[in-house]
Amino acid sequence: METFVVADIGGTQIRAAVFQTGNPNPIVVKKIRTKDKLQTPTERLIGLFKEIWPYEQKVKAIVVAVPGYLDKNEGIVFEAPNVPGWIDLPLRQLLADQFHVPILLGNDANLAAIGEWRYGVGKGHDNLLYMTISTGIGGGALVNGRLMEGHRGLAGEFGHFTIIPDGPLCGCGHRGHLEAVAAGPAIARYVAERIALGAKSSLETVTNLTAAEVSQAAQAGDALAIQAITQAGTYIGHTLADFIHLFNPSIVILGGGVMASGSLILDPIKKALLDYILGNSYLDQMQIVTASLGDNAGLIGALALAETTDFG
Amino acid sequence: METFVVADIGGTQIRAAVFQTGNPNPIVVKKIRTKDKLQTPTERLIGLFKEIWPYEQKVKAIVVAVPGYLDKNEGIVFEAPNVPGWIDLPLRQLLADQFHVPILLGNDANLAAIGEWRYGVGKGHDNLLYMTISTGIGGGALVNGRLMEGHRGLAGEFGHFTIIPDGPLCGCGHRGHLEAVAAGPAIARYVAERIALGAKSSLETVTNLTAAEVSQAAQAGDALAIQAITQAGTYIGHTLADFIHLFNPSIVILGGGVMASGSLILDPIKKALLDYILGNSYLDQMQIVTASLGDNAGLIGALALAETTDFG
Repeated sequence: METFVVADIGGTQIRAAVFQTGNPNPIVVKKIRTKDKLQTPTERLIGLFKEIWPYEQKVKAIVVAVPGYLDKNEGIVFEAPNVPGWIDLPLRQLLADQFHVPILLGNDANLAAIGEWRYGVGKGHDNLLYMTISTGIGGGALVNGRLMEGHRGLAGEFGHFTIIPDGPLCGCGHRGHLEAVAAGPAIARYVAERIALGAKSSLETVTNLTAAEVSQAAQAGDALAIQAITQAGTYIGHTLADFIHLFNPSIVILGGGVMASGSLILDPIKKALLDYILGNSYLDQMQIVTASLGDNAGLIGALALAETTDFG
Repeated sequence: METFVVADIGGTQIRAAVFQTGNPNPIVVKKIRTKDKLQTPTERLIGLFKEIWPYEQKVKAIVVAVPGYLDKNEGIVFEAPNVPGWIDLPLRQLLADQFHVPILLGNDANLAAIGEWRYGVGKGHDNLLYMTISTGIGGGALVNGRLMEGHRGLAGEFGHFTIIPDGPLCGCGHRGHLEAVAAGPAIARYVAERIALGAKSSLETVTNLTAAEVSQAAQAGDALAIQAITQAGTYIGHTLADFIHLFNPSIVILGGGVMASGSLILDPIKKALLDYILGNSYLDQMQIVTASLGDNAGLIGALALAETTDFG
């Protein structure tokens, strides 16, 4: 049995845990705020690791789930937009200097994908697509039973996929990406824009509208809110059809806050899939399900990556 | 050393060959027409196999490259649009009844991808994208050094990928797919339509215009022909950017007749890649090259698939 120390970095929280081989229930788990007046996120991560470190055991490896772009070979975080200062950060070296064990870095959505495959609803599905739809849209894929990380670890950018050429501006600076039309902020923005143009809605009086509020209104029957979520689901389903033509998975797993709208988002996703798929042969042996690991997806995915890595 | 008997089925020709492990130069290779008044394509394939069969040796497996959709597990060709009668065809069983050896089926473009990886310009690139642009657009990917076939063998449909929602009708019945705006027939159709609307071109007098004729005119400096090829290249480059965000390959290999236009098509592809890519980190360790195996890509890919298959 091996022991692994892992962390999942978010814009709000850093979560860290100690796992042992084969057990998705951590021995120790702790979360702290990412931002602090006195410490950088990297200092806080190192401090948290020292706090939970199982000093009585040999640690096989550290794994960090990063919310952004990274080079897994070089161990460099190119950019994690929500983590202050994480630009061109040599994270592996900074951690290796402190802990002297092998260090793996992975994109958080990629790790959630392998987590769902090994410990969640994706068990047994060696060709699996995972997409998380919340403030942003990310994803990951298992191909032939292995995580698709790509040459440098940059694979699985499911949100920055052009669905409307010359469409709305995305946070990345390009236009018409799925994230720009179907993530939470896009759903909220659509409703706010329609209200500004005179559309009737129970949300008319809400300022700084969020996707969660749109979801609540939709569940209460608000027509504009339902329309906004239906439209997002249609874009997601259309994109998934394109992805399924590329990957031919046996399961598609959908996670993230936007999926909390339940059938209001899942039904239009499924309808768009049927509308845009090339043929039944892609769908008649394929499941589409919601994610099962919740807030622990990143941590459990980090464990799964460690367990499937050959440390030589 | 193992011996393999392989075939590559096209709408015009069936090519078959006998290979030995590790050698991409066939011991025997023969091609015949696909269509015949007296025989079905399947009968012709079986006859051709019997003609080239190395009776003095033990054949390890047969591999067939199929130009269409198939279930590799069940051994059924769902549809190969250019091969008469190949709809819901139990090809593996039909061949097994005759030859009593293991039989593998693969999509022809998928097999070309693994062929380029094992014997062509993709050697050493364990994360590889291959796209072929001719009458149709197909493709294949290597992920973690293994061919991405998907759950049933339906992966790699790179041509049926939406680049213009509600755009031109594709042969598959859906709209705005890459194949409908960037394959050879789409290039020729664009020029013909522009001429019908009064555009000036050296191709004005040509009836039943082909993409090859457009390519020749472009190389001779015809502005409309250059514009048509530039537009196709831009669509291809934009699509490749989206694919690179998904797969993060270290090489992109482009094949098929349309690539015979050389820099006239490759330059706009590269420009669109730069315009649409999320960041330099995707491109600065990535090559983009033209395919190296030519007409033998399907046969050599079939050999490569056999060599990387565990026959148990």
